[in-house]
Amino acid sequence: MKILRDLIEVDTAVEAFARALSKISLRTESLRIGEALGRVVASEVKAEFDFPDQDRSAVDGYAVVAEDTYYASQYSPVELRLVHDRRGDLCIGKGEAFEVFTGNPIPCGADSVVMKEDTVREKDKILVLKPVPVGGNISRKGEDYAKGSILVPKGTVLNPFHIAIMASNGLKTVEVFEELRIGVISTGNEIVSPGLARKQGEYYDSTGVLINQLLIQDGFYKVTYYGVFPDDVKALTEALEEAVLENDIVLTLGGTGVSESDVVVEVAEKKGGLVFRGVKMRPGRPTSSSMINGKPVLHLSGYPVAAWTGYEVIFRRAVAKAFNLLNYNRRVAFAKLARRLPNQVGYQTYIRVQLKMGEDGLIAEPYMLRGSGVLSSLVFSQGYVEIPSNIEGYEKGEIVKVFLF
Amino acid sequence: MKILRDLIEVDTAVEAFARALSKISLRTESLRIGEALGRVVASEVKAEFDFPDQDRSAVDGYAVVAEDTYYASQYSPVELRLVHDRRGDLCIGKGEAFEVFTGNPIPCGADSVVMKEDTVREKDKILVLKPVPVGGNISRKGEDYAKGSILVPKGTVLNPFHIAIMASNGLKTVEVFEELRIGVISTGNEIVSPGLARKQGEYYDSTGVLINQLLIQDGFYKVTYYGVFPDDVKALTEALEEAVLENDIVLTLGGTGVSESDVVVEVAEKKGGLVFRGVKMRPGRPTSSSMINGKPVLHLSGYPVAAWTGYEVIFRRAVAKAFNLLNYNRRVAFAKLARRLPNQVGYQTYIRVQLKMGEDGLIAEPYMLRGSGVLSSLVFSQGYVEIPSNIEGYEKGEIVKVFLF
Repeated sequence: MKILRDLIEVDTAVEAFARALSKISLRTESLRIGEALGRVVASEVKAEFDFPDQDRSAVDGYAVVAEDTYYASQYSPVELRLVHDRRGDLCIGKGEAFEVFTGNPIPCGADSVVMKEDTVREKDKILVLKPVPVGGNISRKGEDYAKGSILVPKGTVLNPFHIAIMASNGLKTVEVFEELRIGVISTGNEIVSPGLARKQGEYYDSTGVLINQLLIQDGFYKVTYYGVFPDDVKALTEALEEAVLENDIVLTLGGTGVSESDVVVEVAEKKGGLVFRGVKMRPGRPTSSSMINGKPVLHLSGYPVAAWTGYEVIFRRAVAKAFNLLNYNRRVAFAKLARRLPNQVGYQTYIRVQLKMGEDGLIAEPYMLRGSGVLSSLVFSQGYVEIPSNIEGYEKGEIVKVFLF
Repeated sequence: MKILRDLIEVDTAVEAFARALSKISLRTESLRIGEALGRVVASEVKAEFDFPDQDRSAVDGYAVVAEDTYYASQYSPVELRLVHDRRGDLCIGKGEAFEVFTGNPIPCGADSVVMKEDTVREKDKILVLKPVPVGGNISRKGEDYAKGSILVPKGTVLNPFHIAIMASNGLKTVEVFEELRIGVISTGNEIVSPGLARKQGEYYDSTGVLINQLLIQDGFYKVTYYGVFPDDVKALTEALEEAVLENDIVLTLGGTGVSESDVVVEVAEKKGGLVFRGVKMRPGRPTSSSMINGKPVLHLSGYPVAAWTGYEVIFRRAVAKAFNLLNYNRRVAFAKLARRLPNQVGYQTYIRVQLKMGEDGLIAEPYMLRGSGVLSSLVFSQGYVEIPSNIEGYEKGEIVKVFLF
């Protein structure tokens, strides 16, 4: 019987896989900004002009000379003469006011805007009931961003806000990294491709579907799914050779255990070399990595929750590290544990939790089912807790960090 | 000068727009599960068989009769005879053990699995060092889910976990709602379509881009962008008529203010009827709604942050309500305010915040710039705080709920 020796720490595994990934030479392409949602910016985007490009009113009201209003009050309003724009290049002077709406340019001579609700209108004049300071209610030129400032840094995963701010600067295209090509190979004699007939004791390849969908959701991977292969050295050797040829990265699912039929890591070892074999994490202990023909390969468990843990912790963190991604990390929240979470010292443990709204914050209800095949624990969770390998767990009532899905 | 009278509460506006939306008759379609990420399930998905469909070992070890191990200890190990499967339909008896790996079926006669690390192997026998209870280390038939249980309820926005659990049950297709057809119309004489030349004082349609991208990100809308229209009654009338004909819902951007050139709501009022005109929220106060030829129309501000607020608060909450979506709400976290957040009583206020990791939790640093045109406040935020209309604000150091992007 084979045994997993030399398990390494999670951080060491992330480091090692990131090093392997960093050998990939990323290609870039120019995309229309409207097509770039979820893609990674390859070179920083700088503003070509100030935004706004002139002072604007931030409210509906009247552009005035602030000094005129300094002694205004409800009981002794200040009277200003309303002027109208005759030639489109108006300047106002002391004692004058000019009507503006939110977003309108500020006429020359004016240095502030008094809000409509702080005035009373009387035909051709207004009464100001409240003082306004110099600059009051004006959106300054360059207030949103100044010419030359960085709108979107390199390594940003583009969201709708990034794309909108590029649009505000008139940008039509953005330089992004080409999608990383990822090949996914499922293995296991007892695994059946979805859609085929199945006998008792055989299982549909839900792990393959899960990893494919997670990659698709992340938005900058081009996934090729090679299907389910038997635990056969020859078939797996051929599949791996084809997959590394056609992709930047290969993920294998299953066959990472210690039974005689678990051959995928052996095959990888023979074809190239192991980077690591097993990680001090639970679930996902047999997660391994190799290099085949110069391409990084990550071997994930065939069990959905263990595979998910390897994907979430080793794969995603290594990708973020290798390519300096700025916003590829999970959002976090803090929550109070509804139950004690024991840990086996020496292992970094990942516990799925359901989040509920408590009286004064979030409450995390852990899924304690040990089975790494229990997909429903992921379906009904909203995040997970990471227990460091050097502690015996968390107590009930403790506030813990939750990584959110 | 026109004035916004009869502003309604945020909840009332959500309610009213949800009522308008609920008149839409949703169509359904059958999709391959692999194509359904982000789509909404139209009828609940039930399990067709137990998963797993038989008892399985949850660990690597030996299937045994639990009673045999009750007095086992490091100092007085229990010796069991290793048996091998000769015909594939093995039964074990008392005094016997059978090697199993994680996921293997449990042979008949066995009622528990002793973990490998709690044994010592000696040729054809093992020494058990620790007792195991009945059922110990066994994944029970149906442990993940039982036949007939609901795997994915109606109204679920499908994520990778949902798709994987459907795959585990051999499902090839899933019934989802057809994408909602949404038409987007930008208005404003000073607004320029991205890509065209622009003069000082003119602005690119970043709001149009923002709303389009938000809709695309949400995954179950089919967006048609009609472009930028001038503040002209005839042009806008035609555009609105075309858009309501071709879509389930129409969003207009801009022209919701009170200046003479803000005509879009007037047009809508003439063509159909106003549902509401203005909401007690900041930003997004002029957000309005109408029905045109029986189709719900939401009028959002032309300023990006105000439009985003209307989209986030009125549109998304109404969609979730009208169609009973289960997981379309934002994730939340709690954070300590780094500064005081004042509120004008009578308005529900939305403040973008940047989240930082503090010593014992998250810290929320608010963006206080009042300008509703300040897109960078969205770019650099990770969420927002909602201040109810009946309070004067939150104090510095208070723990507040943050809706996460």
